[in-house]
Order: sequence, then structure tokens, then C-alpha cells
Amino acid sequence: MTDAPFKTIGIIGAGHIGSSIARAAREAWPSVSITLYDANADIRSRAKTAQLGAVVDRAQEAAANADLVVLAVPVGAMGAAAAEIVGALKAEAVLTDVGSVKGAVVEAVAKQVPAHAFYVPGHPIAGTEHSGPESGLAKLFQNRWLILTPLYDPRSEYAYAVSQLETFWRALGANVAHMRPDRHDLVLAITSHLPHLIAFNIVATAEDLENITESEVVKYSAGGFRDFTRIAASDPTMWRDVFLNNREAVLEVLGRFTEDLAALQRAIRWGDGDVLFDTFERARRVRREVIEAGQDTPAPNFGRVGD
Amino acid sequence: MTDAPFKTIGIIGAGHIGSSIARAAREAWPSVSITLYDANADIRSRAKTAQLGAVVDRAQEAAANADLVVLAVPVGAMGAAAAEIVGALKAEAVLTDVGSVKGAVVEAVAKQVPAHAFYVPGHPIAGTEHSGPESGLAKLFQNRWLILTPLYDPRSEYAYAVSQLETFWRALGANVAHMRPDRHDLVLAITSHLPHLIAFNIVATAEDLENITESEVVKYSAGGFRDFTRIAASDPTMWRDVFLNNREAVLEVLGRFTEDLAALQRAIRWGDGDVLFDTFERARRVRREVIEAGQDTPAPNFGRVGD
Repeated sequence: MTDAPFKTIGIIGAGHIGSSIARAAREAWPSVSITLYDANADIRSRAKTAQLGAVVDRAQEAAANADLVVLAVPVGAMGAAAAEIVGALKAEAVLTDVGSVKGAVVEAVAKQVPAHAFYVPGHPIAGTEHSGPESGLAKLFQNRWLILTPLYDPRSEYAYAVSQLETFWRALGANVAHMRPDRHDLVLAITSHLPHLIAFNIVATAEDLENITESEVVKYSAGGFRDFTRIAASDPTMWRDVFLNNREAVLEVLGRFTEDLAALQRAIRWGDGDVLFDTFERARRVRREVIEAGQDTPAPNFGRVGD
Repeated sequence: MTDAPFKTIGIIGAGHIGSSIARAAREAWPSVSITLYDANADIRSRAKTAQLGAVVDRAQEAAANADLVVLAVPVGAMGAAAAEIVGALKAEAVLTDVGSVKGAVVEAVAKQVPAHAFYVPGHPIAGTEHSGPESGLAKLFQNRWLILTPLYDPRSEYAYAVSQLETFWRALGANVAHMRPDRHDLVLAITSHLPHLIAFNIVATAEDLENITESEVVKYSAGGFRDFTRIAASDPTMWRDVFLNNREAVLEVLGRFTEDLAALQRAIRWGDGDVLFDTFERARRVRREVIEAGQDTPAPNFGRVGD
């Protein structure tokens, strides 16, 4: 076991990621002190029941004695959450966040952080389609990537804070990478934001078809549609905020997607089987690379046999 | 155990569905006689190794003594496969297929079938992203839907053939529904064909982005992209044939999808969070219905924790 880089941890936001961090940190260091706050009283009450740690009624209380403060709220709420806790940050406290967008979050948070604390923006590329304090999983970050987008801060204390945060995430099972915020936002636009947008959209399209009933769509969903509904089950508030705060990058990759889709549409209309086959064959090769990179298993999941 | 409605079964095509039917039928009736043929000599050899049943070198041999003949080849190969075996069909043999498109397959096959045999087109809404004779799963059809699109044939013997085929599929664990071919093709266009097209397309789009490397896409794929690669890992030949043979219905639902996506694109561009939230919230509700209908489980699969 790695020595705990932080003895006391304050988590703002007790949803899926916040509760997973609480559980994973508890598993890594049983004696670490964990305090959680959530703006929603019902979520606070459920976080208590879920025994995630001490649950407090004011954000400042979660931050006041913490060596590490984690902002685990929707991207659009990061600025306001930071405003609540920055006054309570102790000397040399490390502040991080888990936002799926980095440019807009850094913009909203960094300027508020006092000089005696160190803000190191982060984003764990992990999650399930579930939400809420009960959904936290201690193993959520195992073999997943954690991207840090450190500020430009030449102080050696800042570099030390970054290394402590890396140690923290590695102990939770994650691999750590560094990126600039704008690059993070472009990479995530294609690997996460666009896939979610497409999944949300196709489910809504299916629901709107007036000549096919919703029950038919649901009944025959095992042919592929089902797997889109799984992705589209993610938290609507979180995702609304992602799209509102990563507009340029999402619109850029969406434009490319639409262009490519028009080419496939044309191939279908004109019966050009070679274009279709070549595109499908390339997709299959990328799938093999995902498995080789340890980011999925080859188990026949699509059919969900044995459910 | 239900009495076997067919004592001898011939399967043309020893891929994922053909091999799953062989395994499921063997599990349901250990003494049933199963003979397989595949046009590809390598697949035939692998089907032997996989012990799916007797493997023969000519399609006619698989059909000659069979009470039930199943065409389990790509949609575009159904007509040619039927041509090889119709001359060998014995009196009162039942011929079926498992094609993902029904209009074009019925068109290609029905006219070839002699009056002494009964052709009952079918489609099991089941499958995984895997291919080949080794990938067959005895439980693949459990709690999945099997759609039959019977011909207009007023003979009582034809009605009996349909009921025997229903008994067969129910014993393999499937629920059975009847539809007209054109309705089947429209329902499947939205629940299966369009989801696959979208998945293939986004993987190709990601691969083509010149400012993001393929290894980055693969590395950070756990944010959603990974699940699209799983769907896009399906057999390219099978899917090319689906799109070439269900053109009108696919183009119709694709048009709707593109229209809806343009509305989301506009909402992102103009920062209309309400439109985004409402769309995402509706998608979540459909997800709950899929789970209630038994077509998926609520297990947190998206994160694939525990892999």
C-alpha cells in the first residue's frame, strides 16, 4: 500500500464520481478521513446511508481541514462550487476537479483559488451509466486514464502538489496522463462527448417515429438499439453542461461525423457496397486496438448472454 | 423438454447464428441430427473442430434429408444459397432463414421453393459482435425475439409448418412474433440497422481526424467511444448486405436521425440547455423501458467494472 498522499479528503458532490472516489480512497487507505458535501439535501441523506464518509451540511466544512478537495459536480456548477469553498482552503491544500470539460472549468475555477493553495485540474475517463451516491464503485478507476491539465505555475510547491495528486490517482488504480486543456477537450469531444450526443439523439429519433410504437422499439431493441440506450441513460444535467461548455470542439467533430455519415448515406443510396465494406472493416480494426489497449474485453457483451 | 418438431436439421452457413442454432438445438434435443454446410472450406473445417454437428462439403447434402433447413448466410447470399438446396428439399420439409432483412430475402428465395416444401422466413433478434463457428452460443436466443414473416399460403400444411417452426424457436428460448416483411424491415431499420451504421461511422470519423492520433482515441475510449467500437466489431459482409438490401427503410430513418441531430447541433451552437436537457431526459426514460421489458439488465455495464 502506498502511503496516503492526503490524510484528509473533502469531496464536493456525492454523485457517481464523488462516491466512487470516496469508496476507492477508503479501500486504498482505510484510515483516511473523508468528508462529503452535496448541494442537494436528499443526496446528502443518501450519502450518509451509503456510508461514504462524514457528510456535512455546508461545503466549507468539507473543505476546511482537507489536504485534498475534489470538486465532483456537473461542469456548469464548478465555478459556483469553487466560490463556496475557496475561502476555507487551508495552506498548501490541493484542489482538483473531475470535470469532463477542462477549458471552461479551468476558466471558471482557477482565478478564484488563493495563492496558498494549489489547483490541479483533472478528469478521470471512467464512469458507468448510473448516477447518485449509491452508484459509487471502489474499482471504477482501475486501469482507466486520469488526465491532468496542470496550470502554468512555476513554484516547486505546485509541482509537488501535482505529483501528490498523481500518487493519489495511481493508488486508486488509474494511469495518469498530462495534457493542455484545449487538447483534452478536443480528444474527449470525439471519444466521449460525440458518442453520447449520438446515443441520446438516436433514442429520441426512435421515440418520435410516428409509424413505429415505442413498445416495438423497446421489444426489438436487442439488435443494437439497446446498447445506445445504455449510453443514453447517463445523467442529463451532467451532459447538458458538457455540451454547453465544450461547444467549439463538439461542433467540430460533429461536423466531421455528419460529413462522413453523408458519404455512407450516398453509398447506401447508390448501392456502393465497397465503400460500406471498407468503412465497416476499418471500424473492426479499431475495435481490436481498443481490446489490445486493455480498455475493453473481447467477451461477447453485445448479446449480453447470461443476463 | 418439448418433443423435437424436427428430427433432422440442415444448416447452411456455419457462422455466428448458424453455430448458435446448432448449439441451442443440441442442448434442447440431444438426439437431434444436425448437419452443417458452409461455402468457405476454412469455416467448414473450423465447424468440425467446434463439434457443431456433421459437416458436409456440399450444400445439397445438408438439405437432402432435413425436416428443417435453415439458411444462415449474409442477406446478399440468400438467393444463391437457396438455389443450391431447393432441388434437394424433401416433401414437407420446412425451409427458413435468419436474414436481418426480410423483404429482399423473401423476394430472392420464395420463388425458388418447390410446392412440396414450406418456406417460412424468420429473423432472430439476437447476436453478439463476434463471428465464426467458434462463437456460437447455446443461450443466444434466450428471452430474445424471433420474428416470422410467413408467406401468404392458404394451405393448412403451411400453417402447420409455421407452428412447428414456432415450437422450434420457443424451445430454443425465443419469444415469437409475426410481422409483414415491410414492417419488419422498418422496425429493424431503427432498432438495429441505423444503430450499427452510426457506430461504424463514428469509429471511422475518429480514425480520420488528422489532429488526434488513433492511439489517443483508443487510449481514452472508456468515456463512451469504446461501446461504439463493440457494436462496430460486427461482421462487415453481413452489414454491407443489410444496407444494400434494406435501402429505403434505412434511408428513411437515417433522414430522421440527421434532422434531429441538426436540432441538437443548433441547440449546442446557441447554448439552448433546455432543448439538450429535455432530449437527454427522454432518452433516459426509454432506457428504463428497455430494462423493464427484459431486453437488458440494470448492471453498470458501461464502465465494465471488474473486467
